[in-house]
Amino acid sequence: MFSIKKKSHKTACIFCMLFFSISIFAQQSPVDYVNPFIGTSNFGATFPGPIAPRGMASISPFNVAGVKNTPMEKDSQWLSNPYVNENNFLTGFSQVNLSGVGCPELGVILLMPTTGKVEIDHLKYGSNYSNEIAKAAFYSVNIDKYKVKGEFTASTRVGVSRFTFPKGQSNILLNLGLGLTNEEGAMIKVVSSTEIEGMKSVGSFCYNSPEDAYPVYFVAKFSKPANKFGVWKKTAKYNGTEAQWMGYNGKTRMMENTIKTVVGDSIGSYFTYKFEKQETVEVKVGISYVSIENARENLEKETGKKSFDDVYKETYNEWNEELSKIMVEGGSNDDRTIFYTALYHTLIHPNILNDFNGQYPEIKRTKIGKTDGTRYTVFSLWDTYRNMHPLTSLVYPKQQSDMIKSMLEMYDENGWLPKWELNSTETFTMVGDPASIVIVDACLKGIQDFDIYRAYYAMLKGADKTEDNPLRPGLKEYIEKGYLSTNYSGPVSTTLEYNTSDYAISLLAKALGEKDDYKRFAKRSLSYQKLYDKDLKLLRPRTANGKWYEPFDPEAGSNFQANVGFIEGNAWQYAFMVPHDMRGYIKLMGGDKVFSEQLQKVFDLKQFDMANEPDIAYPYLFNYVKGQEWKSQEMVKKLVQEYFQNKPKGLPGNDDTGTMSAWLVYSMMGIYPISPGDPIYTITTPMFHRITIKLDPRYYKKESIVIERQENNDGKINSIEIDGKSLNSFFISHEDFVNGTKLKVIQN
Amino acid sequence: MFSIKKKSHKTACIFCMLFFSISIFAQQSPVDYVNPFIGTSNFGATFPGPIAPRGMASISPFNVAGVKNTPMEKDSQWLSNPYVNENNFLTGFSQVNLSGVGCPELGVILLMPTTGKVEIDHLKYGSNYSNEIAKAAFYSVNIDKYKVKGEFTASTRVGVSRFTFPKGQSNILLNLGLGLTNEEGAMIKVVSSTEIEGMKSVGSFCYNSPEDAYPVYFVAKFSKPANKFGVWKKTAKYNGTEAQWMGYNGKTRMMENTIKTVVGDSIGSYFTYKFEKQETVEVKVGISYVSIENARENLEKETGKKSFDDVYKETYNEWNEELSKIMVEGGSNDDRTIFYTALYHTLIHPNILNDFNGQYPEIKRTKIGKTDGTRYTVFSLWDTYRNMHPLTSLVYPKQQSDMIKSMLEMYDENGWLPKWELNSTETFTMVGDPASIVIVDACLKGIQDFDIYRAYYAMLKGADKTEDNPLRPGLKEYIEKGYLSTNYSGPVSTTLEYNTSDYAISLLAKALGEKDDYKRFAKRSLSYQKLYDKDLKLLRPRTANGKWYEPFDPEAGSNFQANVGFIEGNAWQYAFMVPHDMRGYIKLMGGDKVFSEQLQKVFDLKQFDMANEPDIAYPYLFNYVKGQEWKSQEMVKKLVQEYFQNKPKGLPGNDDTGTMSAWLVYSMMGIYPISPGDPIYTITTPMFHRITIKLDPRYYKKESIVIERQENNDGKINSIEIDGKSLNSFFISHEDFVNGTKLKVIQN
Repeated sequence: MFSIKKKSHKTACIFCMLFFSISIFAQQSPVDYVNPFIGTSNFGATFPGPIAPRGMASISPFNVAGVKNTPMEKDSQWLSNPYVNENNFLTGFSQVNLSGVGCPELGVILLMPTTGKVEIDHLKYGSNYSNEIAKAAFYSVNIDKYKVKGEFTASTRVGVSRFTFPKGQSNILLNLGLGLTNEEGAMIKVVSSTEIEGMKSVGSFCYNSPEDAYPVYFVAKFSKPANKFGVWKKTAKYNGTEAQWMGYNGKTRMMENTIKTVVGDSIGSYFTYKFEKQETVEVKVGISYVSIENARENLEKETGKKSFDDVYKETYNEWNEELSKIMVEGGSNDDRTIFYTALYHTLIHPNILNDFNGQYPEIKRTKIGKTDGTRYTVFSLWDTYRNMHPLTSLVYPKQQSDMIKSMLEMYDENGWLPKWELNSTETFTMVGDPASIVIVDACLKGIQDFDIYRAYYAMLKGADKTEDNPLRPGLKEYIEKGYLSTNYSGPVSTTLEYNTSDYAISLLAKALGEKDDYKRFAKRSLSYQKLYDKDLKLLRPRTANGKWYEPFDPEAGSNFQANVGFIEGNAWQYAFMVPHDMRGYIKLMGGDKVFSEQLQKVFDLKQFDMANEPDIAYPYLFNYVKGQEWKSQEMVKKLVQEYFQNKPKGLPGNDDTGTMSAWLVYSMMGIYPISPGDPIYTITTPMFHRITIKLDPRYYKKESIVIERQENNDGKINSIEIDGKSLNSFFISHEDFVNGTKLKVIQN
Repeated sequence: MFSIKKKSHKTACIFCMLFFSISIFAQQSPVDYVNPFIGTSNFGATFPGPIAPRGMASISPFNVAGVKNTPMEKDSQWLSNPYVNENNFLTGFSQVNLSGVGCPELGVILLMPTTGKVEIDHLKYGSNYSNEIAKAAFYSVNIDKYKVKGEFTASTRVGVSRFTFPKGQSNILLNLGLGLTNEEGAMIKVVSSTEIEGMKSVGSFCYNSPEDAYPVYFVAKFSKPANKFGVWKKTAKYNGTEAQWMGYNGKTRMMENTIKTVVGDSIGSYFTYKFEKQETVEVKVGISYVSIENARENLEKETGKKSFDDVYKETYNEWNEELSKIMVEGGSNDDRTIFYTALYHTLIHPNILNDFNGQYPEIKRTKIGKTDGTRYTVFSLWDTYRNMHPLTSLVYPKQQSDMIKSMLEMYDENGWLPKWELNSTETFTMVGDPASIVIVDACLKGIQDFDIYRAYYAMLKGADKTEDNPLRPGLKEYIEKGYLSTNYSGPVSTTLEYNTSDYAISLLAKALGEKDDYKRFAKRSLSYQKLYDKDLKLLRPRTANGKWYEPFDPEAGSNFQANVGFIEGNAWQYAFMVPHDMRGYIKLMGGDKVFSEQLQKVFDLKQFDMANEPDIAYPYLFNYVKGQEWKSQEMVKKLVQEYFQNKPKGLPGNDDTGTMSAWLVYSMMGIYPISPGDPIYTITTPMFHRITIKLDPRYYKKESIVIERQENNDGKINSIEIDGKSLNSFFISHEDFVNGTKLKVIQN
């Protein structure tokens, strides 16, 4: 449990420090390889600032606001990053952020140090910057215009900033009117010359469900009392008769030294200092989704008397502990960097939602709940069911268990498992019913310390209830016909997702001995076959009367263009999205040859999209064809080299809350969860000589499992052994894997 | 002290009840004469709803919003009333209100009962109404559209509403987007199905000082849990690139059963019930200017388990106790009604600002202060120094003492005595430095339980500091030349106000033995003489070079038109605004004849304005001329008959936080504080046979003083006796008056 871990940190503080000193000055530990700049360009949508493992708070430099000098301006396009590496105009440091998502959200509560007269227009107070340094739990930058150095770290629920100011008047702005979110409304109150409290409304994720917009509360504490402070408010212009008497109509209001509550869409506060010499000010910002009081408690309990350096050391150690669950040997420095950074990125979301005292907003925000464990949030399940959750089950099973418990709590709270849950709002983004797959996958891998029948019942509700079912639109037609017709959006994609979920449910039904359900769902999971067009050798949409949808262009819909049939993809990208029945699909297509030729075409026609989920397992599919496995080995190696690099643009696109990163972690380890729900891995060439995965004794018998590569000349895999016994296959069950000691991949 | 009184109510509850029962069912008590409709038309700006004596909370029907059907619509003109008697379209019941002011402010936190589907547009949910009943501490009305009955009462800090709904779906809306104030911004949070908390920004009084806008916090508790609840928010329309993706752009959001905090300019919440039969719901709304927590504590401590009827009985008894400080005998029912309603209106402002726990926002809102006594607010001093505070000193000296203490606290808090203080903002409305007059008047009447030298020092600061003096603009010129030139706005009015204040200061200096100050201020107080134009026999503005301002039209500026020379008046209306030196002024004008002819002209030329303060003492000025006193007697009688009636339009104009009402109370008692600051009354015909003023033993030796009229035929006063001794004068000192037993006015 996370909270227990944290306690042991405290009580064993001396050891921590010792460990820290050793790790920082001796050889590089896993944490030292993390390069948070990876993914901050090419729409990776990660941010370079500090966050604790699965932290609620985080700090990101905010450089996407500024019409003139900003190539990627947040309001000029669909942009989901608080920070873009090629931009150069900084307007603050946001205190809550999402990593690797595809829609603009959060990126709010902006701190900004300035000097001289207080200026509150971000286009005027913004600055160029230089000397950026980003490490796990640490980011620093020089803010050129003001000759101010900013350093940043974070604990789970608290962002900590340290500003070093030159002599003279210095200011720290807290701007609630600027942010990545499109949501309006904020509240601010200066409590004293060292404290500010307030809230900011966020939400409308992906420009949807504005009625679910919700507050993020904060308390900011300053290490030095301000000489002066104030609040500003930009007001709307009044147009009525009374406007003639309002000399102030539409003008910004500056309210000096006030401690009153101010609300508005564009408000902020400033703390002003008069320094006789260079001085530093530390600002701690505690976050809560429940209340200001909880934000204050989070701040006090997590960082109370701790200095910036104290917090940094603790979070640094937390990261190292998490990342050291996988130890690699061999590979280049860049290999280790992209590997550990990817692992780091899989440990950001889902993140902790509950406050220090256990409280969290229940989904839909009709109640405040309380947990003794950890309540997780940010479940981008359409992405993460494919590999991120399977990875978590393997390396961080306790976290996966708590994530499942959180999903079941959501079911209790609003009657449905989550689909794309974000800070206790259900955004209903993307299609399918992926929660079942995540739960079954974990359960069949041995994570079973939750109420499995409750989960099973919840899955069945989503899978069977044909009326008013928010998870599975079109379910009635799907059950009746085996597919969604073009009356629904993305009918082929949705059918394939439902099939995949139904397959997972059938596996659990089987494991539970529920034979009727097993048969029913196993059968349902194969209905994709009705969408197989033998002539095209592709899956193709049908209209409600059963005819093929015409005109049909299999290439339409690449690059996220809207098209009839598919969601975020086209017929080629979805051509093999039947991970649960690949052998059946091979038969349906007419055998290995047709299958592998058609699969090869996806790549040859440049229809393969590394940046989106439907086809990311395709490079591994050659493993299903005897003698073609070398293609998977080459393909995976090539894709890693092409798309994953130790550079800001070193992710193929949106990280999708760690999904791209999890793909990389698996791919570099030489194993991949080829059929989510099924506890099975397919195998390719590991990219390190040796990989040791520490196993959690609460869930696994062995302490660790080693993957080892025995290198020869041409790089193709010759044989694979588990504990010296040949596998005779490019697949291994999770059970065999974790109960083994060493998986050895021997090359020709 | 108010709080002690309240406690004794509690401990002596049985007696209260007994008293209540007797008073309500036996003969009419003073409280029963109160008609809160008086002043709700003709711009009186009072409201008919319930309030406790000097209460912070009050409830007013709100019928000034509704463009189509509303003769006096709040946004179509300068309108300062939450309720106008001739309007007929009701859109709610506001929970904090100002009484008798001249600028739109407060009138917010609107409760509205409806039935059927929830409708949140006030133009659609508004209703006609009927069967209005208004009494002290009680108002009720039938809301025709919904067949709902609303009944309302209030304790000091809590408004209590009782709605009787028919069978079916009923709703209680709490609208924070509508109000009399022009200020934007609110916050709301449904805490549970029986509780809502939030705040509303108010301020910009008289369309000024928007940066001083401030929050009023509230907690609303419902006697029955809602079956459903929700929050709405009307949003602004977004115009950027992203608008294309925002299907919800500019649309109102309905958020069902949410407990999250929502902020915005136009927000509200609804509680919905499904009733099987006619049912009542009671709603208590606690108010605080400090915090939501305090609003909740105010609600709990004042009304915790009390029913609507309990609260009504208590406040009814409080009113009766206060109003019974003056008992009248004789007069018609209407006479008693207008008298006690006027006394009631003098007991609304200044009102209590501090919460039950003693906390209040200090002026300028840089700190939360705490008092063991009572912190008062709403000091419209340019109005109230003339008669309202003198009346309070006589009848409610403890309250006057606490008001002075509050004024001195304000001085401590921001370095200046108040001018027009409103909920701890200094609005700087109107001209002059009236606080000194109020304090000196009370002090010389024997209210001296405050730090007199501190007050004296504060007065001197306002009177002498020529730089950065917010109270007395132009003070340097005034001291140098004796008057403000036309470089300043309203220079004659301002000079006269400064003279009056300086005179008051001179009186206190004399009493304190500060001879130099006495002489200096006594001299300064006569500088108005430099503005006396012997040809016109009027006070006239001078330019900076000392010349008379040309062209000069003495009649310009009647009816509140802006003019050079005067504020809210013209040369006729200010012609005798030298209350402190009337005998000197008579000499200056050339004697009694010129004086009384010129005074008569004010009335004959129809320049006398009963509705504004500068000239309201003029009817009494004939008392300065031997043999002309009958004119004052006739004039006062005529004015009372003409302007003060038992009707909604029964006030001459804005009540000016009780100033018009205090004029009536004094005038009907036959005495008037003719020279504020000077402890002296001038005498006219009492309008009751006998008036008994109970005196507070903490300040006065006698238990009471009686004013008695001995009637004869023609109604002119023949002689005046105090305790049987002839006065030989139409003036009596406060000391002689309160140390007497009976003032007898004998008519011819």
